[in-house]
Amino acid sequence: MKNMMIGQSGGPSPAINASLAGAVQYAMASGQIGQVYGMLHGLEGLLQRQVVSLSDQIVTALDFELLVHTPAMALGSCRYRLPKDDKEIYAQVLQILQHYNIGYFFYCGGNDSMDTIANLSAYFRSQNADIKCIGIPKTVDNDLAVTDHTPGFGSAARFVAASFSEIMIDSMAYPAPSVTVVEVMGRNAGWLTASSVLARAHGYTGPHLIYLPEIPFDHTAYIEKVREKLKTERHVVVAVSEGIRSKETGRYVSEKDSGEVDMFGHASLGGVADVLKTLAKEQLGIKARSIEPSVLQRVGMHLASGTDLREAQEVGVTAVKTALLGQTDVMICIKRVSNHPYLVRYETTPLENVANHERKVPLSWISEDGTNVTEEMVDYLRPLFRGETHVNYEDGLPRFFRINQEKLV
Amino acid sequence: MKNMMIGQSGGPSPAINASLAGAVQYAMASGQIGQVYGMLHGLEGLLQRQVVSLSDQIVTALDFELLVHTPAMALGSCRYRLPKDDKEIYAQVLQILQHYNIGYFFYCGGNDSMDTIANLSAYFRSQNADIKCIGIPKTVDNDLAVTDHTPGFGSAARFVAASFSEIMIDSMAYPAPSVTVVEVMGRNAGWLTASSVLARAHGYTGPHLIYLPEIPFDHTAYIEKVREKLKTERHVVVAVSEGIRSKETGRYVSEKDSGEVDMFGHASLGGVADVLKTLAKEQLGIKARSIEPSVLQRVGMHLASGTDLREAQEVGVTAVKTALLGQTDVMICIKRVSNHPYLVRYETTPLENVANHERKVPLSWISEDGTNVTEEMVDYLRPLFRGETHVNYEDGLPRFFRINQEKLV
Repeated sequence: MKNMMIGQSGGPSPAINASLAGAVQYAMASGQIGQVYGMLHGLEGLLQRQVVSLSDQIVTALDFELLVHTPAMALGSCRYRLPKDDKEIYAQVLQILQHYNIGYFFYCGGNDSMDTIANLSAYFRSQNADIKCIGIPKTVDNDLAVTDHTPGFGSAARFVAASFSEIMIDSMAYPAPSVTVVEVMGRNAGWLTASSVLARAHGYTGPHLIYLPEIPFDHTAYIEKVREKLKTERHVVVAVSEGIRSKETGRYVSEKDSGEVDMFGHASLGGVADVLKTLAKEQLGIKARSIEPSVLQRVGMHLASGTDLREAQEVGVTAVKTALLGQTDVMICIKRVSNHPYLVRYETTPLENVANHERKVPLSWISEDGTNVTEEMVDYLRPLFRGETHVNYEDGLPRFFRINQEKLV
Repeated sequence: MKNMMIGQSGGPSPAINASLAGAVQYAMASGQIGQVYGMLHGLEGLLQRQVVSLSDQIVTALDFELLVHTPAMALGSCRYRLPKDDKEIYAQVLQILQHYNIGYFFYCGGNDSMDTIANLSAYFRSQNADIKCIGIPKTVDNDLAVTDHTPGFGSAARFVAASFSEIMIDSMAYPAPSVTVVEVMGRNAGWLTASSVLARAHGYTGPHLIYLPEIPFDHTAYIEKVREKLKTERHVVVAVSEGIRSKETGRYVSEKDSGEVDMFGHASLGGVADVLKTLAKEQLGIKARSIEPSVLQRVGMHLASGTDLREAQEVGVTAVKTALLGQTDVMICIKRVSNHPYLVRYETTPLENVANHERKVPLSWISEDGTNVTEEMVDYLRPLFRGETHVNYEDGLPRFFRINQEKLV
């Protein structure tokens, strides 16, 4: 019986460990897989033989329950990309996998990772090594092609939406008019910033302006929009993607740590929200503040989406099922079957359809003036962030699962 | 039968509405109070006769339940301070209160607010107006005198501690060594920054350095400390109060929006965490990042402390009880009776003992090198952030209670 190896790559997300839990649990119960191994820090760790036995370390129902509700990456991540032409590295990877008698190889990550698996798999085939290679999608950015959405996105979207609710209620505490600019993750694709729209519920009207990186940012138009909104809203809340670029220069509106000055001659303040806040303050003479929730967006497990965590587990399960059916060189996809009721199906797509592609927000889902999203976007987003999760708290703090990274095998 | 008036002042906190709920519910059930009125935006709103009937607006058990779990201020806040010598303003307040036949006046806020009530009450007495004036403490900064701790603090502390857990787990995803600097609220008192220590649990060792505003900040010593920590920790996490001041200059380490340069000749980057991050990056050549959770710390109801919300309600209840017993000119205090088990008693203290005082962290609770807190501090903090809360979610978002601010009476 062949063994399996699984690894994680790219940026942390609240759902990547749920996929790990799903895959490991299904593999262990299948009776068709011997040992379940995990590589620490992705392929970078694998090359250093940093391998642990997940069969030995994730055992009880509580272990799995905790792992599902642990943010970031239990196995550790890497930003390592296999050098495409260095066949020696590929040979090393194969040798290590053969050492562990691996027949099934799973890698969880974004489009870079899918490219990595595709290259590895091609090499394995060229060496007549029968190792099924399956990609497990994840990214809070939701920018992978083919799949309707990516595990991790719904949870980050819920954190963003709930944070906007809270920030709005915080703004409304004071009588004086104000502008609050909140910076959301997503350098090239605006999905997560768009999800701030979900906070427009329960009678709250904000965010009032939403700026996605898909639309070049017009400084003058922004000031006019804020001025206009302030006529009807005492407290204007603005959602802005970290990756918006200036319409005039094509450069990031805020180039962090660049030491350069922006188009208004101000020094870069370290964040785009700060730039937009300062613009509003100086040009409109209004009380303004900026908020940058930063990595809390991708690790806020207490606000993870129940739907997302469930789907992430299913994606992990489906990855193992698919490999056991003899498929290889595919990534698991979520296909939305219907929206009312919300139903999905798990499918596969060839890795090459995902590798190195980046799915941006369709321009037809952005309002004409570039400061809002359409009802289609809201319909798309709404089911993804629903559902609560049960985080285990112990002594006031969320309890997370930890893999013992010292116990190498 | 006399009526009661209640208002909120100062900065938002996750527990101020819990105190409001406790006070209103007890008053309505007491049979000794006629109408329960709320002033919108504190005394600033009261002077404009922005008064609502809470008896009419907070009615069902669900209303109270939602109000307890609503962050920021349901009645709205103000930063208004009564001009001390302008007796005309005092006369106006009295006239408005008499218009509503008020016999009981409650104001929820920090030390400024306690000063305000004390001055008001003195004026009422000088006019032979029998209005009992009671202060209800609140502040996430925990800097009020006499009371063991303030409602709102435990919840903010829990948000901070849980965020540090999550940030640490996020840091650990990558193999490369790193420094993460997290900025915590509290300009003059380090209580909230100190509460990051609670994240050192479940096998996690950070935050590894804790900088409070009570200790002047030494840039050189900081770099040495980080260098030293990096010998044993791959990922160093630093907690820093927004209000630390330079040992050399006595000025804030980061003077936001000042346009000035810091002692190293760099432009102010907008936050102290950014300054400390840049220092580590430039002097140690290490991957570094800064995180500023900002107002999320004071509105993160999903991570509110059960203990805090319960106590906040009790403080509200005690305020009304106290007024009905004929007491005036006092603030409600929490007195810690024992730590194991954690037991408290609710007492009163004259407003003058609290007004304009600021309680800082005792130096004896800070380690000698100024980068850690002692076990006494941990013992003090631990019971305050414990206990979960049940936030009502509807369609993915937390559901908050809203007072209809249009329905003036």
